[in-house]
Formats: sequence, structure tokens, C-alpha cells
Amino acid sequence: MSVRNRAAIVGVGETEFSRNAGRSNLQLALEAITAALEDAGLTTDDVDAIVKMHANTDLFEIDIMRSLGIQNLRFFSEIPHGGGGSVGTVVHAAAAIAAGQADVVVCFRSIRRSLMPASRSRAGRYVPDGMQYRIPVGLVTPVQWVAMFGRRYLNDYDLTTEAFGLCAVQIRNNGAINPHAMQYGRTVTLEDHHNSRWISEPLRLLDCCLETDGGSAVVVVSAEKARELAASGRSKRPPVFITGAAQGTGSRTESMTSYQRDSMSVLEEAEETAREVYRVAEMEPGDIETLQLYDHFTPMVLMSLEAYGFAAPGASHELFREGRTTLEGDIPLNTHGGQLADGYLHGFSMITEAARQIRGDAVNQLERRPRTALATAGTGVPTSALILSADGA
Amino acid sequence: MSVRNRAAIVGVGETEFSRNAGRSNLQLALEAITAALEDAGLTTDDVDAIVKMHANTDLFEIDIMRSLGIQNLRFFSEIPHGGGGSVGTVVHAAAAIAAGQADVVVCFRSIRRSLMPASRSRAGRYVPDGMQYRIPVGLVTPVQWVAMFGRRYLNDYDLTTEAFGLCAVQIRNNGAINPHAMQYGRTVTLEDHHNSRWISEPLRLLDCCLETDGGSAVVVVSAEKARELAASGRSKRPPVFITGAAQGTGSRTESMTSYQRDSMSVLEEAEETAREVYRVAEMEPGDIETLQLYDHFTPMVLMSLEAYGFAAPGASHELFREGRTTLEGDIPLNTHGGQLADGYLHGFSMITEAARQIRGDAVNQLERRPRTALATAGTGVPTSALILSADGA
Repeated sequence: MSVRNRAAIVGVGETEFSRNAGRSNLQLALEAITAALEDAGLTTDDVDAIVKMHANTDLFEIDIMRSLGIQNLRFFSEIPHGGGGSVGTVVHAAAAIAAGQADVVVCFRSIRRSLMPASRSRAGRYVPDGMQYRIPVGLVTPVQWVAMFGRRYLNDYDLTTEAFGLCAVQIRNNGAINPHAMQYGRTVTLEDHHNSRWISEPLRLLDCCLETDGGSAVVVVSAEKARELAASGRSKRPPVFITGAAQGTGSRTESMTSYQRDSMSVLEEAEETAREVYRVAEMEPGDIETLQLYDHFTPMVLMSLEAYGFAAPGASHELFREGRTTLEGDIPLNTHGGQLADGYLHGFSMITEAARQIRGDAVNQLERRPRTALATAGTGVPTSALILSADGA
Repeated sequence: MSVRNRAAIVGVGETEFSRNAGRSNLQLALEAITAALEDAGLTTDDVDAIVKMHANTDLFEIDIMRSLGIQNLRFFSEIPHGGGGSVGTVVHAAAAIAAGQADVVVCFRSIRRSLMPASRSRAGRYVPDGMQYRIPVGLVTPVQWVAMFGRRYLNDYDLTTEAFGLCAVQIRNNGAINPHAMQYGRTVTLEDHHNSRWISEPLRLLDCCLETDGGSAVVVVSAEKARELAASGRSKRPPVFITGAAQGTGSRTESMTSYQRDSMSVLEEAEETAREVYRVAEMEPGDIETLQLYDHFTPMVLMSLEAYGFAAPGASHELFREGRTTLEGDIPLNTHGGQLADGYLHGFSMITEAARQIRGDAVNQLERRPRTALATAGTGVPTSALILSADGA
């Protein structure tokens, strides 16, 4: 028994992404959810489960259900660890459906980044595990935590920051031609990357994701219901089947600072998740036709490409040089511009873009519509991955 | 497809319950978890999933896995809403196992209540939904929120606080003969209840649960694995099958203050969860042989008895008068002394006691060992319920 092709994404909804949405986090969530339900041909009365990211600390499923008039939820769940939980919402939705605990599951992410202080005081707050050893030496923010991995990666494989630049430029230029993207119209070059200021060496501004306000949601139902919705014409788009779904942590895991592992240039949590998601999907890397990989900082994209089996250790940068990950390549990557250019909703847009590419309604729709897609969640934390497919057979 | 009898509890572990454990929350969790694994005949190497209550805000599954040397988790989840999530951990474990996403799931709760301030400052913190309307009028703590429901219950059914007293006395006196209970040896009478001081009218001291330090854990595996462990003699006790498992929210739900519903003397979230857990278990109230019902405050126990179908609206107090819920009755209730006398781990001990009664190793073991048990999670919030059984057929 596995979740393989037991459930499908039938609705996708998203607000605009911006620096300041000018309306509440709750409203952003509701806009995305109602759009996803409409896209699916379903109503709020059909919803019997909501799965959220723990990261939505100020918004619970009861806020959503009260606002929409939902009468009862028979499954609800939270996936911890920030962006590591984004794709995990759909992993849990698939499990709930396979186990008969839900029929119509809403998964969502919304954020008012503009209302969050740049650096939240930790006075009187819980400081997780390893952080108590990191913060006193100046490792306070995500970019600093990831810079440590980035430096080690360059050292271990004798690379320069051009490796990061190749990744940044390509993903950002996908966003430059996506009208939904916050960086729409802003084409960048390797020279722009090189000239952008250090945020935390060896990471430059163009290696870093955006700060975004926005909402995003998907609706997940059983494969049978998905086929019914499509056959009856109620859902606007073909179903996108959840062929592989997995979570993983790796060992000796800390939140963003797993510096005590054997290697810092290998993403152990992603390797474990990769193994599991391919096992569930009964697929291998060669079966995947587009990649939507979590890109909060470029080094993690390179390491993800290696963990998920698309390049040998230290060799990811060659994929970019060879053009294999471009919109015209054989494994197009972060086709919407990812979190570097489209917007940063802690991984949720990797799900929506993967689904849209398979449905055929992505903004940067690939000419050869992909039959399969890999979407991954946050790296450096307990994570999750999905393999989506068009035929679900 | 449902989770009915697809998984089983094979290990139970618990620390002592006290006012001050004198060691860390992490240590309490680890002691309970290692005891539960030993009880199950399993080791930390077998664990591939951990489900926690959101309420353990200062302890993540990665802290547990690092401490125990677990190499990877392929499923992890958090159940929100305080005590409403306790039983939900096992609901999710059952779903993960049924969906093939986990083999050996640890569910736990640990708490150092003694280290928490009596009233935490909400300055700079998120104030959930309805609370912004409650706190300014003096409804600040759980006992005050529940007092509103309690008063309404008494009014609607023309009862006196003796109804609460009957419940408090019986549950507390179960604890008085349980050496594990914090109230061991402290027999109470209806007069004691009546003479105990008001905490928030109409709730007296003896209507309220305890403040407890402690840890508690269970290990959940597939039904097949549970039978193997029992047959090989590796697990010390017979498996306890998860026959019904459900979550539920009801409508117009706020956290502890759902005052906007049609009735305040009916637990809508419990009614919805009851419907679902009986449906999954293919059972009805008459099939249940012992009840472990969440008892943070006595009015909620009365309302739970009604929501889960053991008494007509307003008639629960008669069960106590008739002795039906005593250790000698036909539906023994909170046999360990519940959260009023054993200790308050936000509902987790309802799971452990239900499992132990079925296994036959409860401290207050019922003379006729029950074949089925109902365990329920927190009321007044999104909640969860389990029906456990001895035969799993």
C-alpha cells in the first residue's frame, strides 16, 4: 500500500505576489483558496480537511473554516519546519485521502512578510536546539546559516561563486518573462550577479529569494473524484496525479544548522526524501520532465539537483552551463522564476507551478507539456517532495 | 478504505507525574519514548515517524531523533489546538501507516508545566481570532472560557453544580487508589467538592484538572507488525488495535470560545468527531466497554458523555448517580483518575489508559477486562477520538 496515484491536485489558486499586499494574511489565504476551489469546480461545502504549514503561525484552519462557512473538518494537520513543510501539506493530504480520512483537502500558504519585523526579538522566546550555539557567534539569520553550507560546497568541489551565479541568472530570467513574477522584466546577467552586493559571503543579493506578500492554495481529492470532476467538466483543468509523496529528515538534524553531519556539501534530508519519493512513485530521475526545486538560496538548488539524482556531487553547475535546465532543456528548472524571481511563499509555488506545467496552463508553459514533475520543499530542515504526473496510471 | 484495524498500539511509556519533575522536558519525552519502545519490543532504529502535539512548542521531532540517534524520519506531523491534538497524534499515525508512509510511529506528549509562568504575557504575540473580543472583558484563562459553557449547561438543563460534583468525585476517587496519580490517597466527597473554593463560578477547585510535569508516549505499528511482535514474544503485551480514529472541528469554531454557535451546552466538535469515529469503527456507543474522556473541567465531561452517545442532553449526571461509570459499572470512566487526579498531559493519558485497560495492565485494572475503549481529546477546540479494541477483527 502506498499513496501512489491515489489522489490528485484538481485546483490551483494564487494571489498576486508583491512587497505589500495591502490586505490581511487571512484575506490572502481566502482569495487563494476560493480561487483553487473554483478552479476545481468545487465549493466550500465540499471541503472536509485543511492542511497548513506550521509557518502560518497566525492563521489556523479554524480561521479559514469560519470565514468560508465550512461546517466541519474531519482531518487537519500542520507540517513543521518552515519551508520544509510546504510540499508536505500535499503529502499529508494524499495520506489522509488514501486512508479514508478526507475527501477534499485544501492546502495553503499565505504570508504578509511586509508586516514581519526584519529581525524578531528572541527575548523570552524559545530558541531551538542548535541555535543556542549559533546565534552567539553571529549566525542569526537564514542567509548566514546557509552561507556556511555554500562556502563548504565551493571548498569541497573547488568551485567559485560563478556556480551560484549560473543558477541565479537562469532562474531569475525565467521570472523576467513571467508577468506574475515580482521580478518580471528584470533580466539579469552573470556580471549583474557578480556585481550584486554580498549579503553573507559567499552569497550575494542575487543568490537570495525575495520577500513576498501573497497567498497560494491547492485542492487535493481522490483520484476517482478527480476523474469524475474532469469527466463532468466541473473542473477547468485536467487532474494532476500525486504519484510520489514523501517527507524526510536525515540524521543529526537541526533547523537550518545541521553542521554536525559527516558532510556539509550534501543535503542528507533531501537524499532521504529523494529515495522515498522515487520509491513511492516507482520512478527514477530520468522519468522527471520538469523540476521545481526549493530555491531560497542558490547553493541549496545545486545541492538539491545532486540529492535528487540529476548531477554528480559538485557537478550541478554543469547542467546550467549546458542549458539542460532552461525552458528549452530536457529538465527545465523553476520555470516560473522560482522564489528568486516569482516570489517566496516558502515553497508553496513549487507545487502550484509543477501542477500548472502538467496541466498546460503555466505562464511560461513548456512547449513540450511535461507529463511528470518533481516539486521539493525547503532544504536545511526536515523536508518533503512530490512527484506529480499527468496520467496517474 | 478506512484506517479501521490497520494499525495498533504496541508500546506504552510514561514517566511519573509530579508538580516538578526536576529534569528537562526533552528528558521527560525521551524517558517516555524509550519506555514505550522497550514495551513494544522495538528499538530506536525501528522508528521512522514521529507525531507530536503542536502544544509541545519547545520540542520538535528533530530534538527527539537527534537525542535517540534516529537516522531518518519519513513521516512527521503536528496536531494543533492544545489538548484537542493529543488523541489526534494517534489518528495521524494510523493514517500514515494505512497510507504506507510509516512503519513505526512514536506519538508523545511531555510538559514541564512547572516552568511555565501562570499567565504568559501576550505582548507582541499573536492573539488568536475570537480572543481579541474575550480577553478585554476578563475571559483570559481556560477555566474562565469553560465557565461560560458550564453556566449555560446548568441553566439550559436546570441543574446545580452538584452535577459537576458527582463527576469530580468519581473521577478523583479513581485516582485516589492509583499510585501513579498525583492525587493518590486523596479521597474526596461531594461535600469536599461543594466546599472547595470557586476558581471561576460555577467551577470550583475540584472541577479543575491538575498542573503536571511528565512525559507519555505510545508506539503505533501496522496491524500485521503488531501481530508479529506479539507472536514472537518481542512485545510484552498484546496489541491494541486502532479500530476507529477521527478528528473533528464543528462549525463556527474558535479556540476555547466558540460562543457563537446555536447552543453552548452541546459540544459540536465532539458530536462531529463521535459520528466519524463510530462510522470508521463500525460501532455504536453500546459497543464501548470503557471511556477515557478528556477531563480538563467537569462540565466538558458531562457534555462529552452526551456528544458520544452515552446520555441524553443534560442527563449525564444520572450516569454518575446510577454508578454506571464507576470501576464496577458498565461504562467505567477515566479509570486512572483522569486529568483531575492522575495528571494533566493535555489528553495523552486518555490514550495510554485506554490501551492499558485493553491490555490488562492498568493500575486500576477493570475486573472484566474491556475489549473496547473510547479515548477522546480536548473539548472546546478542534478535537479527535479513538476507538481501541482487543481483537482488531
